[in-house]
Amino acid sequence: MKIVVINKLLKDTHREQIRKTAAGIGGEVVFVDKEEDIPSDFKECEVIYGFGMETARTSKALKWLAVPSAGVDYLMKPGVFANEDCIITNSSGSYGVTIAEHIIAVSLLMMRRLDVTYRDSLNGKWGSPLPQKSLKNARILVLGTGDIGCCFARRARAFEPLSLTGVCRSGECDEPVFDKVMKVSQLDGLLPETDLLVMSLPDTQETRDILSRERIGLLPEGSYVVNVGRGTAIDEDALADALDSGRLAGAALDVFRNEPLPEGNRLWKTPNLIITPHVAGNLTLDHTLDVNVGLFCANLSRYGKGLPLENVIDRTKGY
Amino acid sequence: MKIVVINKLLKDTHREQIRKTAAGIGGEVVFVDKEEDIPSDFKECEVIYGFGMETARTSKALKWLAVPSAGVDYLMKPGVFANEDCIITNSSGSYGVTIAEHIIAVSLLMMRRLDVTYRDSLNGKWGSPLPQKSLKNARILVLGTGDIGCCFARRARAFEPLSLTGVCRSGECDEPVFDKVMKVSQLDGLLPETDLLVMSLPDTQETRDILSRERIGLLPEGSYVVNVGRGTAIDEDALADALDSGRLAGAALDVFRNEPLPEGNRLWKTPNLIITPHVAGNLTLDHTLDVNVGLFCANLSRYGKGLPLENVIDRTKGY
Repeated sequence: MKIVVINKLLKDTHREQIRKTAAGIGGEVVFVDKEEDIPSDFKECEVIYGFGMETARTSKALKWLAVPSAGVDYLMKPGVFANEDCIITNSSGSYGVTIAEHIIAVSLLMMRRLDVTYRDSLNGKWGSPLPQKSLKNARILVLGTGDIGCCFARRARAFEPLSLTGVCRSGECDEPVFDKVMKVSQLDGLLPETDLLVMSLPDTQETRDILSRERIGLLPEGSYVVNVGRGTAIDEDALADALDSGRLAGAALDVFRNEPLPEGNRLWKTPNLIITPHVAGNLTLDHTLDVNVGLFCANLSRYGKGLPLENVIDRTKGY
Repeated sequence: MKIVVINKLLKDTHREQIRKTAAGIGGEVVFVDKEEDIPSDFKECEVIYGFGMETARTSKALKWLAVPSAGVDYLMKPGVFANEDCIITNSSGSYGVTIAEHIIAVSLLMMRRLDVTYRDSLNGKWGSPLPQKSLKNARILVLGTGDIGCCFARRARAFEPLSLTGVCRSGECDEPVFDKVMKVSQLDGLLPETDLLVMSLPDTQETRDILSRERIGLLPEGSYVVNVGRGTAIDEDALADALDSGRLAGAALDVFRNEPLPEGNRLWKTPNLIITPHVAGNLTLDHTLDVNVGLFCANLSRYGKGLPLENVIDRTKGY
């Protein structure tokens, strides 16, 4: 069984871990930094761990594509796979810690006006005290109660007292970290009671444009929005309008409808908007990479034994 | 009994709360925004809640000065009080929440390189992923285990697993929030095992220059320093050298030896240094002001009944 791993951030320990796992199931691995570097005798590989999009598009031999990302929207389009039965697994479970830390960081940054303070300091200016907000007593709505939403909620809980409401499709969450969990159909009633809206949703037909202009209008004056899921979830123009008018106190977006965010896009100049270039979850954090590789190895072992894989994407749901 | 309250941030509800408490002990209150505004018939007041430094310096009638700050170093110099028996109380207990949030915010900001990302975004630049660090697995040393140190430790705990070591004079802390609490005399042995050093110390003879050049040299490569106590605790020049050389990964200072930090001071241009203008704890956060006023009212009630006050400053210790 030929296995290709595409990831330039891997350390020797990761390579060793993957090599050993592969050897245990009679697999042979090659490691490359970029897909173009796959040697000719591995182009017809059975398994890829990494963004092997060109191989997926052209090779009918590929049986399993394990991507290191959590979102897989980019794989749900027609023509992505030459072999339509190719199994897709994502790496959900490896990003909760890092993205939770991002959400806490940008929420406090906005609430405490550290953006203004930092801007002042760059100009050598000793700023004045500004009105501050706190996570304490905040009413937090978490849209998307997967690994990321739960990891965030566990950390936010320490800033108590505060309220944490989860919202997801089923209205149910296994982990008892929210005060209550509601269905997406109840969202409109919850938004007016929200100080901080945290969005960690995959891109699916149901989540696209979920934070519409109308729903942004339901958020109370002075509230905050953080998005770490996918940019398609938000009407960006309506959000920019609400920030321009000062009705929303701030927003922090790590994801955008178009990435990289195009030059000249109005969001670059929108006030009280923190823009990060899709880095809330990335493999530059050791912990994230360790878990990511661990998930793949566990799955590779299962694959070799013919057992069902974890994190298999349901193509009808899109996550 | 004449009581003067100096605080321009008070809301009507705070004034009402203070007025009622004063009435309960036969006191008469006047509220002013600045000390210069004290009416002539209140200049010989018995109690001041606020920064009544000029009155303290000139009036022998003043029996109790309740300051809204936690630090009182500025009251420990000779000549500050005309009445040397004047009781001093501080407002320790009101800043823990807000300063803890500040520490979490700036620590994550540094570890996740959000300073670089934000600077890029101000220039309309979509940055690249940078190496990130995490509170997870961090070895955190908290120098000063009072209200602020404990409030921070409780919140940091949620980013588990990590280690939290407290350091204070006695080596004992009532709250069981640290993995271990050590004495200041053991500091040198602890610094080499520290990823994040959080300093929340008052300015006293014992804390001045506590983070000396030698001790900065004991911190490991890639570690971070956060100071929210008093600027006198750090050899600023040695810290700047360690940041310039890249040995320390970052520092976040809210307090400085000279405030405002003078124009042209090298710290303004020191790399990986987050400068905030002594705003980690200020009364612009509603919660802080509410607790601050509550502490004063509880003490005022005790004062009227001749009971011992809370938060009384021991002039020999300086806190």
